[in-house]
Amino acid sequence: MLLNQIQIILIETSHSGNIGSAARAMKTMGLSRLRLVAPKQAIDEQAIALAAGAKDVLDNVQIYADIDSAIADCQLVIGTSARLRYLQNSLVEPRQCGKLAIQRAEQGKVAIVFGRERVGLTNEELLKCHYHLNFPTNPDYGSLNLAMAVQLACYELRMAWLDLQEKTDIQPLAEYPTSEALEHFFAHTERLYKELGFIRNEAVMLKLRRLYQRAELETNELNLLRGMLTAVEKYSLKQKND
Amino acid sequence: MLLNQIQIILIETSHSGNIGSAARAMKTMGLSRLRLVAPKQAIDEQAIALAAGAKDVLDNVQIYADIDSAIADCQLVIGTSARLRYLQNSLVEPRQCGKLAIQRAEQGKVAIVFGRERVGLTNEELLKCHYHLNFPTNPDYGSLNLAMAVQLACYELRMAWLDLQEKTDIQPLAEYPTSEALEHFFAHTERLYKELGFIRNEAVMLKLRRLYQRAELETNELNLLRGMLTAVEKYSLKQKND
Repeated sequence: MLLNQIQIILIETSHSGNIGSAARAMKTMGLSRLRLVAPKQAIDEQAIALAAGAKDVLDNVQIYADIDSAIADCQLVIGTSARLRYLQNSLVEPRQCGKLAIQRAEQGKVAIVFGRERVGLTNEELLKCHYHLNFPTNPDYGSLNLAMAVQLACYELRMAWLDLQEKTDIQPLAEYPTSEALEHFFAHTERLYKELGFIRNEAVMLKLRRLYQRAELETNELNLLRGMLTAVEKYSLKQKND
Repeated sequence: MLLNQIQIILIETSHSGNIGSAARAMKTMGLSRLRLVAPKQAIDEQAIALAAGAKDVLDNVQIYADIDSAIADCQLVIGTSARLRYLQNSLVEPRQCGKLAIQRAEQGKVAIVFGRERVGLTNEELLKCHYHLNFPTNPDYGSLNLAMAVQLACYELRMAWLDLQEKTDIQPLAEYPTSEALEHFFAHTERLYKELGFIRNEAVMLKLRRLYQRAELETNELNLLRGMLTAVEKYSLKQKND
């Protein structure tokens, strides 16, 4: 499975809770491979509590001493980064990162590397990355929580992966009425509301046609609307005869 | 500013920490308008700690007793939901949600409504929404944390907003009614067709809601439909008195 080729790598994470939340974020998007480089806190109760149903991701975590060993078997390395001037040519946004990573996952393992909570990745670490992932945050407040950043990256990975599956995906559709049936309905409406004195010019029917065409009326909805016309007719007739 | 038209609404949130994390998630993406409906915990120290630099979002929070009052001034309401069969036609993914909301924010306020941590939105609440936001999560584990869901939605809102800044041509859009005006229409319809003996159970109003929410009724169309209700009423009354 392509998503299993993607390795989420967290560098020197300070809070174990962030590791748990990252695991949960990954699993909601179908990712499962988590690597930690020299975490400051071990996987503890807090991490497990925040992982919720994603404890299996924590159980299978791989721990490394440094970034080199963590990315050694990866063919593409994307590291998160601020919008640094000297990285200009290698910066990608999450959407592009998702596409790149999924494309390259066909060939081999891909690493998405997240830096420390406060200071991110070092310059040396950034230089080991082929691309640099930058989140399009508010210029006045770009303080994205680590697990939130993992969530956004994994979301775009999943979107890119789903796009790839799409060829086979055929949506079941509702039943739709024929044009003839629609025309009967419009004629019925016009007749009745003329009788009620409401329709006096063409504008009303034009508006109703526009509305119901746009809504792409389904057969069961058309039947309902016709039932409502009949109900009004019957009631009026009954009143007349009473 | 367009992003200020978007109201993030959290319904009966159980954990104040989630409110704080949601505020931070919002602010990283440039959103600031947070509304709470009957939160189970007040904004406390935990909320403020997790909001980090987004305390201003919490300071400006608006609290409502129920969803109706929270969405009353909004012209478009999008509620998060599981992939329910009967919502099939109104389901949108985050990307589409972002585009829709930003487009419509030009006209008026837009609500994005998030349900309770464990049980989401009730069926009744879902019916008040024009669209239903579904996150493309792992079918085996869709347990997205509330603040993570807010983060993803806000990210796509920002992406759509950034896209808009790049474009020069903006399509003129129609005027749309508030939720309150729509509710008046639904109540009026129900009253009248019950009197006519047509509505005997809830199914009819559910279908009509689904139809008209999907169609995104414009103000002039709503006025037309209300005119038709009044025409039926007047006619029936006249017959009675003759």
